[in-house]
Amino acid sequence: MANVVRGVSSPYGLHRVLEPAGVLPQQAWRLDPDPQPWPDEVVVDVERLNLDAASFRQLREQHGAGPAVRQAVLDIVAERGKMQNPVTGSGGMLLGTVRAAGPESPLGLTAGDRIATLVSLTLTPLRLEDGLERWDGATEQVPCRGTAVLFARSIAAVLPGDVPDAQALAVLDVCGAPALTDRLVREHGGTPSVCVLGGGGKSGSLSLAAARRAGAGRLVGVVPTEAEAARLRAAGLADQVAVADARDPVGLAAAVGEPADVTVVCVDVPGCEHGAILSTADSGTVAFFSMATSFSAAALGAEGLAADLRLLIGNGYVPGHAAFALDLFRAEPGVRALFEARS
Amino acid sequence: MANVVRGVSSPYGLHRVLEPAGVLPQQAWRLDPDPQPWPDEVVVDVERLNLDAASFRQLREQHGAGPAVRQAVLDIVAERGKMQNPVTGSGGMLLGTVRAAGPESPLGLTAGDRIATLVSLTLTPLRLEDGLERWDGATEQVPCRGTAVLFARSIAAVLPGDVPDAQALAVLDVCGAPALTDRLVREHGGTPSVCVLGGGGKSGSLSLAAARRAGAGRLVGVVPTEAEAARLRAAGLADQVAVADARDPVGLAAAVGEPADVTVVCVDVPGCEHGAILSTADSGTVAFFSMATSFSAAALGAEGLAADLRLLIGNGYVPGHAAFALDLFRAEPGVRALFEARS
Repeated sequence: MANVVRGVSSPYGLHRVLEPAGVLPQQAWRLDPDPQPWPDEVVVDVERLNLDAASFRQLREQHGAGPAVRQAVLDIVAERGKMQNPVTGSGGMLLGTVRAAGPESPLGLTAGDRIATLVSLTLTPLRLEDGLERWDGATEQVPCRGTAVLFARSIAAVLPGDVPDAQALAVLDVCGAPALTDRLVREHGGTPSVCVLGGGGKSGSLSLAAARRAGAGRLVGVVPTEAEAARLRAAGLADQVAVADARDPVGLAAAVGEPADVTVVCVDVPGCEHGAILSTADSGTVAFFSMATSFSAAALGAEGLAADLRLLIGNGYVPGHAAFALDLFRAEPGVRALFEARS
Repeated sequence: MANVVRGVSSPYGLHRVLEPAGVLPQQAWRLDPDPQPWPDEVVVDVERLNLDAASFRQLREQHGAGPAVRQAVLDIVAERGKMQNPVTGSGGMLLGTVRAAGPESPLGLTAGDRIATLVSLTLTPLRLEDGLERWDGATEQVPCRGTAVLFARSIAAVLPGDVPDAQALAVLDVCGAPALTDRLVREHGGTPSVCVLGGGGKSGSLSLAAARRAGAGRLVGVVPTEAEAARLRAAGLADQVAVADARDPVGLAAAVGEPADVTVVCVDVPGCEHGAILSTADSGTVAFFSMATSFSAAALGAEGLAADLRLLIGNGYVPGHAAFALDLFRAEPGVRALFEARS
């Protein structure tokens, strides 16, 4: 047993991998969810799981609602020691309270802290103890009782006292996009123009606010409908609000007008790569934050258009991203209004 | 007919799109291959097509070798006005001689230049005129007679007189990787360490040579076998040659040792994202040049490992990339030796 003979723990959680040996926890079939923390780990009393939307949809389609979907989640967690949907490969995040932090944990958490995990459930050791009796299987919000483990390199955010849980979670879920937007604008120097595809959404509105605060010049928000355009105009986050289908490269480029120095893609539908490339100025940057992005469509699209652009895979981790996004949310009434319109 | 009533041409070739209207040539079902150039176009007498490996494999699997696969290619080009495999979506490149350049073409080509196209066949208007009678269907090299069209924003390289066609094409095919590696090392400043996964291959060996020339510090080449390691050591392109399976993150990181400031992924197999991330130093850069890269594996992998890295989609276009790669090939005996071992 892992808690009888103990070797050296790994900041990436390699010591929790039971099967197959030697892979990272995210690739593992089975993790050891033992709630006894290693010296650099944190153990959390779990209060709620937020299943990834794609995972929840698949489970509902396969099992229907109610007891069957509940049993499916229980079976996955019992077998794998983590809530990673074996069909979609995706997970979600969790809410809970720190039970114990090992003496060598670098996460800065102490017993009693209410936290949300910012690393995926796909790599988080998890044990459920209540049979999910309070979950009706109707939504991806799963109230539960159980334990989870955070490694030295895991990321968790202490939930703020002044923002309701649901809103804080929604902000934390997309906090990588505004943090990277901030960095791109500052790295660029001067007053780069920034275009956000999906500027009326959660990650999009935060990215617009981040760009403004970082000193961007002209700010363009692109949305798919007039109704969303009206809301984004009212929110005051962009200098120019354009209505266009981001999957239509020619229409999108026409709607944006002068190409932007930095384009941030926050539209979660496939097929936006070429439009983003075509609406970005030479030597500019496109940051893709949509999980629907196709690597090859982006790479070949830029080559086919002879576009000398820097194409970034939106990395969900930037140091300080959680506090930064919550701060934008608190400070910007326009962002809060758009979040409320979407909740 | 497009050549009767002519409007304004587009540098991206929108005026050649017949169906569906308004999309870019790469997304189009059908292009107009009329060999009459618009003022900003170049028309090429085609001498050879190089079908993309994935496309050729699919055609062979569906049609076998010989007359059936030949007819399949003829049918695709006749129907679509371009050689884009409808199953794989991929194309390839072509060799030919410039027949005519419109007075407004910015490509700097003149009649008689022997060229290779560096944009994909998936967006190149093409007409075949010889029934592919000289092609036996056995290899992806298709000798032919026909015409192709280059747009104002297309890219073509004049074939050098001093490098045999086959070698020049192999170099041009991967010329984006060394050009971007050069840029990344120079942007970094100082003497960044560079690790190239697949350092014994074509794009990998050119990338190692580019990194050295740009002033990189420690240079690591990772290869999958001892035989390749021996060849890469003999080529003298890396300070450290490591044998590892790039799909095994833990094994790869151990083989690389001290994480690199810049990691270039030139391994064309799926599943190398996490290894690349794990072997790259904090605040470093990973450039993915493999078309087998999974966008979501890279994005979620970095987040799951709390890795503050810049993740780049390897854009195949960097201004000057063709001449730069040919120059490296000429100047570096080690690169030439590795190309010869692979041909």
